[in-house]
Amino acid sequence: MTLERFLQDLDRDIRKAADWGKVADYIPELAGVAPDQFGIAVALADGQVLTAGQADRGFSIQSVSKVFALACVLGRIGEQLWLRVGREPSGDRFDSILLLEQEKGRPRNPFINAGAIVVTDQLLTGRSPQQTLAEILGFVRAAAEDDDIHIDKAVARSEARTGYRNAALAHYLRSFGNLRNPPDHVIGTYVHQCAIEMSCIQLARAGRVIAGLDCAPPLLAPVKQRRINALMMTCGQYDGSGNFAFRVGMPAKSGVGGGLLVIAPGKASIAIWSPGLDGWGNSQMGTLAAERLAEFTGWSVFG
Amino acid sequence: MTLERFLQDLDRDIRKAADWGKVADYIPELAGVAPDQFGIAVALADGQVLTAGQADRGFSIQSVSKVFALACVLGRIGEQLWLRVGREPSGDRFDSILLLEQEKGRPRNPFINAGAIVVTDQLLTGRSPQQTLAEILGFVRAAAEDDDIHIDKAVARSEARTGYRNAALAHYLRSFGNLRNPPDHVIGTYVHQCAIEMSCIQLARAGRVIAGLDCAPPLLAPVKQRRINALMMTCGQYDGSGNFAFRVGMPAKSGVGGGLLVIAPGKASIAIWSPGLDGWGNSQMGTLAAERLAEFTGWSVFG
Amino acid sequence: MTLERFLQDLDRDIRKAADWGKVADYIPELAGVAPDQFGIAVALADGQVLTAGQADRGFSIQSVSKVFALACVLGRIGEQLWLRVGREPSGDRFDSILLLEQEKGRPRNPFINAGAIVVTDQLLTGRSPQQTLAEILGFVRAAAEDDDIHIDKAVARSEARTGYRNAALAHYLRSFGNLRNPPDHVIGTYVHQCAIEMSCIQLARAGRVIAGLDCAPPLLAPVKQRRINALMMTCGQYDGSGNFAFRVGMPAKSGVGGGLLVIAPGKASIAIWSPGLDGWGNSQMGTLAAERLAEFTGWSVFG
Amino acid sequence: MTLERFLQDLDRDIRKAADWGKVADYIPELAGVAPDQFGIAVALADGQVLTAGQADRGFSIQSVSKVFALACVLGRIGEQLWLRVGREPSGDRFDSILLLEQEKGRPRNPFINAGAIVVTDQLLTGRSPQQTLAEILGFVRAAAEDDDIHIDKAVARSEARTGYRNAALAHYLRSFGNLRNPPDHVIGTYVHQCAIEMSCIQLARAGRVIAGLDCAPPLLAPVKQRRINALMMTCGQYDGSGNFAFRVGMPAKSGVGGGLLVIAPGKASIAIWSPGLDGWGNSQMGTLAAERLAEFTGWSVFG
Repeated sequence: MTLERFLQDLDRDIRKAADWGKVADYIPELAGVAPDQFGIAVALADGQVLTAGQADRGFSIQSVSKVFALACVLGRIGEQLWLRVGREPSGDRFDSILLLEQEKGRPRNPFINAGAIVVTDQLLTGRSPQQTLAEILGFVRAAAEDDDIHIDKAVARSEARTGYRNAALAHYLRSFGNLRNPPDHVIGTYVHQCAIEMSCIQLARAGRVIAGLDCAPPLLAPVKQRRINALMMTCGQYDGSGNFAFRVGMPAKSGVGGGLLVIAPGKASIAIWSPGLDGWGNSQMGTLAAERLAEFTGWSVFG
Repeated sequence: MTLERFLQDLDRDIRKAADWGKVADYIPELAGVAPDQFGIAVALADGQVLTAGQADRGFSIQSVSKVFALACVLGRIGEQLWLRVGREPSGDRFDSILLLEQEKGRPRNPFINAGAIVVTDQLLTGRSPQQTLAEILGFVRAAAEDDDIHIDKAVARSEARTGYRNAALAHYLRSFGNLRNPPDHVIGTYVHQCAIEMSCIQLARAGRVIAGLDCAPPLLAPVKQRRINALMMTCGQYDGSGNFAFRVGMPAKSGVGGGLLVIAPGKASIAIWSPGLDGWGNSQMGTLAAERLAEFTGWSVFG
Repeated sequence: MTLERFLQDLDRDIRKAADWGKVADYIPELAGVAPDQFGIAVALADGQVLTAGQADRGFSIQSVSKVFALACVLGRIGEQLWLRVGREPSGDRFDSILLLEQEKGRPRNPFINAGAIVVTDQLLTGRSPQQTLAEILGFVRAAAEDDDIHIDKAVARSEARTGYRNAALAHYLRSFGNLRNPPDHVIGTYVHQCAIEMSCIQLARAGRVIAGLDCAPPLLAPVKQRRINALMMTCGQYDGSGNFAFRVGMPAKSGVGGGLLVIAPGKASIAIWSPGLDGWGNSQMGTLAAERLAEFTGWSVFG
Repeated sequence: MTLERFLQDLDRDIRKAADWGKVADYIPELAGVAPDQFGIAVALADGQVLTAGQADRGFSIQSVSKVFALACVLGRIGEQLWLRVGREPSGDRFDSILLLEQEKGRPRNPFINAGAIVVTDQLLTGRSPQQTLAEILGFVRAAAEDDDIHIDKAVARSEARTGYRNAALAHYLRSFGNLRNPPDHVIGTYVHQCAIEMSCIQLARAGRVIAGLDCAPPLLAPVKQRRINALMMTCGQYDGSGNFAFRVGMPAKSGVGGGLLVIAPGKASIAIWSPGLDGWGNSQMGTLAAERLAEFTGWSVFG
């Protein structure tokens, strides 16, 4: 069976699902999205992009943006980032404040909210929120070779109004001296970065630089690309990361909008979207689709 | 440069190290080992085993044994194991009891002590401690195709006498109903399993089944092999796992005896030994050697 | 209304209760006790003992014994005890192992299980388990001026067989070097101490030394008596201590057998028994009775 | 020796101290206060106020204000408060966010910062910040029968600028739905309430209503007075509360400005000020003075 045919079958199978999970309800603008939607796009090393389902429908990438913000900050300051953020799985929820107290304000990794807020704060050094957002958005557009990628300001405003937990994290980081900009600036920038809207096709194309595909624009040194993948493998799905590695065997990053970027290093960049979430806050059907795809292609990095 | 030559150079460089880390002091029989020792063996898919340094010197594999015990139990009961043990990194020390309380007696993964004790308890079902140890040792010997692998009973006794923390974990698991055999039996078996003595050459050869090498004896189904690798990647180095994935990019399992089994799926099984440990309880020079080897060979699974 | 009449009315009211709470089920010998029982005895400064309900029915005092063991150890080594045990409320369950890890093996106070196990270990210094139990039992008999107080060995054996969590605590304390005797000896002694059987009348009489009543045998220096009361006030009801102080306003110690020793310093020693427990593991009707008694008598230490 | 003479001797002894502790440095306006200062005032039931040292020197009462805010809110909504705040010691630092996560946004008690912020939020219901501050200040003035008590606005502004941890707590409470007013309003009100400046004489006089002295203005029902004392006893000194109860035996509340309000129910209201703090954040010499006073007077509630 060809990969193209497999994706069509996968789409058809997924649509028969009885339980799609629950849409995140803490961001009002996202709470109204129907959970039973599905799209997938696979960007291959030769430049082809195979798709199935609602692959050109835009969605809010949310935490998937943390991968691109991390790529930007590694490009700018490199290893110095690790003075402010750790590289270990947290064993805790994505927005937990608990370990932050035990570790005196140094977030466990750049993919939990506290760590991502520090990354954004670092990007804000010497730049305005507008310039910082332009940098992240510019990176994503260049990676996807597509200028038609935008921030959905209604989503950003919706999150800014209700994002008390992220505001708590920012103030808390500041109390430990691990936030240099005013909490309001950082959170304002952070929620806009999370509100980038992309389709599966756009996200799969942007992910080519993370996968180190031959066809990808030369935006990321190989050593950085490998390291981002390592972090995605151990920390990319919050406290469901171990389970995802076990079932799928590829680095990935999820977002509460239902997006999922999965990397087969050197082989493919895969974007999946299905807005219903599982108990860990990861796309329920997206994870299943990734598992089925890994089985079909043998793209697990574990042999 | 050939891999053989690289290994010789690596051995020479490592021996110049100023800081070898500290030997584990909580097991009396191991406390007397000199930290400034080093050996490495690389088993390749074609059956060759390349070595450098003290590659045929025996050492106590300790927690590396958890990989082989896990392989045995997956062979016996498969997916049912996950009803009793999780698959997530712990974000905590190897012998922490903290998360065990929060998660009501279900250890986070089979590579922290509490999880490994549950694995051993499961292996004891319907078998005596002697039979259980014979099963684990039999698996290791068959994997290495070498019957000259033994348990160092002096080390086992040494640990049994002082292993109050493991005894606490076993009693605690039992209080949650997640230990079926008497704590003393389980801990007695567990410390003997940890006291298996192997050389780097023997360990690299045994690791071939975990790496799924063409030359490996057919002891482990490919899907199980992949899953063990996933667990090694996310949980194999305790709360230094994220850092190891970041620096080395290969699944691995460390032991407090200074052993380190590193897997390049489909390509190689690597055993390293250097008894000085870093702050996470992993071999300090062993980790450095693995990082250098990954750079030289390009065996990182992340591209 | 006289106190005597009040106690009769209280007994009558309590017996109308719809919800008596649940009997502790983790000690098999206690699990069979009917929850809807009630007795109360009030020993006054002039030597009188007023009673109502099943005041001469024997019950297992369980954790109330921690008060008497503490009195013994303070008599023997005084302030040195605090090198091994703290004096702060734990904010946690009676058998939690969590804070023990955070505080490196020094229990928060002598009334949570871990702390009481350290007290028993200290009492075992230079004595056999038999001698130690004779010392505690001797203190209780002398305080009550009643030699007809015994240990219920069936209860002790019942707890010893199933007390995996206490065994875990003992091994854990030992792993931090804060247990000097073998865990089995300490737990064996501890469960026998908890299995002392007393009636409300006997317990109220024994409590006179803790209350510093004029009629009490001179077994405890006033400064020690005050300090034990302070600990009972802040730590005597596990993580329901704050609530008890709020509602009742008197120092007290509860046991899972449903016993409750409440102290009105200088005025009275009150023993209540009702085996149904609330969510914190304290006697549900016993707490209500103590609250009603405090309202009637004005014995709250808070004015 | 008379109490008057004892207080003079105490003042003289305290001034010989070699180690006064450290002044709180996280509020800039307070960081410059010299630690080696001491004042004490004892208000007796007959209306007398005995003093020694710098008893009429004003200081920032800080967390001592939590007692008066609690009195106001209990007067306004009574028992309903406990739906939003607990009554248990926290076993944690005064500004910890950890337990708040475990207990889903319900602070353990009204004397840790998170709980006090909820109290202030409750007082803001239906009132402006100005009206709320007028209510608290009005209560304090009426209790002290002294209109010359003011808020030090420089201290309030100083804390508002740097109080990132309190802001984090407020946002966090709001994320759980346990804050009804905007975090900025609540924190703005809270820091002004903490910035009330009083002398020992004024504070001792205000404390008479908490002590239920005969000479006190009738501002607080006896049952509320008792309950506030119970909370002060179990929770008034953060995670040094157990130790304070053990050493002093009286309900008390400390503030980081070095103030300490100690209550001998029905007998006396004691205010002590010495700005050097111990490791728990309580006045070091203030605690010693309270201990000495308790020994001299026999005012321990524990007999």
